[in-house]
Amino acid sequence: MSLFDKFDRVRDASGSLALDSEPSPLGTRIDEVHSPTRGRIGNSEVILAGTNNYLGLTFDPDCIAAAHRALDEAGTGTTGSRMANGSYGSHRQLEQELAEFYGMPSAMVFSTGYMANLGLITSLLGPGDSVILDADCHASIYDACRMAGADVIRFRHNDAEDLDKRLRRLADRREDGLDNALIIVEGIYSMLGDRAPLTEIAEVKRRRGGYLLVDEAHSMGVMGATGRGLAEAVGVEADVDFIVGTFSKSLGAIGGFAVSRHRDLELVRFDSRPYIFTASPSPATIASVREALAIVAQRPQLRDQLWRNAERLYAGLQEQGFELGPTPGPVVAALVESPRQAIAFWHALIEHGVYVNMMLPPASPNGRALMRISLSAAHSDEQVDAILDAFATLGSMLDPSTPA
Amino acid sequence: MSLFDKFDRVRDASGSLALDSEPSPLGTRIDEVHSPTRGRIGNSEVILAGTNNYLGLTFDPDCIAAAHRALDEAGTGTTGSRMANGSYGSHRQLEQELAEFYGMPSAMVFSTGYMANLGLITSLLGPGDSVILDADCHASIYDACRMAGADVIRFRHNDAEDLDKRLRRLADRREDGLDNALIIVEGIYSMLGDRAPLTEIAEVKRRRGGYLLVDEAHSMGVMGATGRGLAEAVGVEADVDFIVGTFSKSLGAIGGFAVSRHRDLELVRFDSRPYIFTASPSPATIASVREALAIVAQRPQLRDQLWRNAERLYAGLQEQGFELGPTPGPVVAALVESPRQAIAFWHALIEHGVYVNMMLPPASPNGRALMRISLSAAHSDEQVDAILDAFATLGSMLDPSTPA
Repeated sequence: MSLFDKFDRVRDASGSLALDSEPSPLGTRIDEVHSPTRGRIGNSEVILAGTNNYLGLTFDPDCIAAAHRALDEAGTGTTGSRMANGSYGSHRQLEQELAEFYGMPSAMVFSTGYMANLGLITSLLGPGDSVILDADCHASIYDACRMAGADVIRFRHNDAEDLDKRLRRLADRREDGLDNALIIVEGIYSMLGDRAPLTEIAEVKRRRGGYLLVDEAHSMGVMGATGRGLAEAVGVEADVDFIVGTFSKSLGAIGGFAVSRHRDLELVRFDSRPYIFTASPSPATIASVREALAIVAQRPQLRDQLWRNAERLYAGLQEQGFELGPTPGPVVAALVESPRQAIAFWHALIEHGVYVNMMLPPASPNGRALMRISLSAAHSDEQVDAILDAFATLGSMLDPSTPA
Repeated sequence: MSLFDKFDRVRDASGSLALDSEPSPLGTRIDEVHSPTRGRIGNSEVILAGTNNYLGLTFDPDCIAAAHRALDEAGTGTTGSRMANGSYGSHRQLEQELAEFYGMPSAMVFSTGYMANLGLITSLLGPGDSVILDADCHASIYDACRMAGADVIRFRHNDAEDLDKRLRRLADRREDGLDNALIIVEGIYSMLGDRAPLTEIAEVKRRRGGYLLVDEAHSMGVMGATGRGLAEAVGVEADVDFIVGTFSKSLGAIGGFAVSRHRDLELVRFDSRPYIFTASPSPATIASVREALAIVAQRPQLRDQLWRNAERLYAGLQEQGFELGPTPGPVVAALVESPRQAIAFWHALIEHGVYVNMMLPPASPNGRALMRISLSAAHSDEQVDAILDAFATLGSMLDPSTPA
């Protein structure tokens, strides 16, 4: 039994589904990216409909220009942790701007979105604390809770009643109530694009106690009057203790952040190992993110366009008879019965000029595959229609009566 | 007992040592960076002698130009994981180049150095596996081992005999030998700048079995005829199974990598949660790193200059009577008896025009503080002398006979 023997099942799965073919659905090489919505994969010029580039800001001239300036002024990297030599003026300014954007006293910047959850949660929670999280939370949240050594309780996805029940049971067996309990949900869930029943969840939290963390990775920039996310959209920001978000979706870069209404978030800096022992984001990344954050506040029309695109695509696929996630949104997921058919369909879509994500079991739920389409404010009506045309033309490949 | 109560000791420590003063030794704001070796902190123009910019490449014209081109061609970020839409042609090219640089069949790129250790180790190790690591290994290695759920055994820092003894005991109690055992050491250790006795460690590994991982974060680009690190320098690369490194030190950017002589490293891509659930490095970062990697191979004179600087500084501080780490190197650490005096000294150094890192207990060993000076090939002789002058002028502040 060697270290690599545990990969035998990966090798088997990979071989049996021909996942190592080119392009590979698990790690597609995008040979060139021409714009937020156009690229080349092998010989196929494709519409990019499988990115998280919700506002299309990766090629925004202001973001690009800010990154160019930062490169010239401050170099290619900080070569140091925020705790040592990696806190430049711009890192602090971005934190200030995030705090102001959310109207909260404190904000921290992390080098990736994964590390934002890891860095915040492993610092807030330890053995003896409890975390009650939605069962469909992102891997970074699960990994953080495991690393923290907290008592992990899952509640049924998007089921506020189940959360209520589990909090009640937890309070019954803890003498000190729910002061060490952290509830974690997401704004929009990445697989099906559905959103949390946050009004109900906030009500449960108010009534039962505990802290509430909302991961707005897929909803920041996308929802709310000023783009702060789902908590803003449904008016429960006063009940939210921590918001975590990412720079690699609406903000078009890489990194993550945490904001809190608790000024003591500042103390997390001195305790959070993933924060302390990681080089800080590059000056160019910080510069483009600062510009993108300003754009989120200044250009609500981008959000409007994103939602028009989402609704157009959702309605079109629904009309074609696809089984979809519960609501339109920046992620529209079509469920496919057979993983093998899904893989063939995914390849055919690329040849047809459309790149989407595919999720296979066990990453996708209930043994079914997901064709996961991500929309962008930068998609034109014609591009949305071209995606719909491709699904209509190739949809017969997914006929459930055809042998898988 | 609320979630934040656990930060009371952080608050106390921070307050008692006035760590929240400006500039703060734990998170110094570097207001402007003018070059790899010059910056401004508040009103002080300083020599930067506390970065990990060992080859001074953060402002290299070729690295900067490559990043500019990538920004224009591919945008500010990939907005996706390597597993989804975040594998651009350039990410694959860098992996190819890293594999060629090390003469190994397989290489993986990660978004931070911390995540390289986390992503590789949590995928290689699980419950039932054993990891035997040098006690002074980096936090990212400890965190990865903890997250993996492996059996963790520490051996005494840089003590190959202790490693041997622990491997023998482990083999005695495991029926299947050491096939699931991973030995982890670093090339150069970040605190004191000392290096692993890698010849002896490799000999123990050959004799006892197990896999060997060397983290060359501080030695890649710095040691070895072609800059591959300590394993190359002492001629034991054939005994090393995995090398982990970072882009945020010699390569002047942010990110990390793993290379292996085992082609099955490729399977880690399909299993490693920190790799799968993180946005990939930005095109600009990848572009500057590719350029920097080529420079490491093409300009050995940078390594020569770095070592000349290291030896000059080490000899000078030794002459002044400072207690230093065991050997000259890119990190030169001066031990200081009193943390309180160290903090005052650190502030005075900045006013005097020199920025270094300071490490305080418990991060530093034996209750003593460390003034940690990092050298760069970009430091001039005059800058090295200016650092020495500052230590000579202010050194009396560290008089052990003065009350702390």
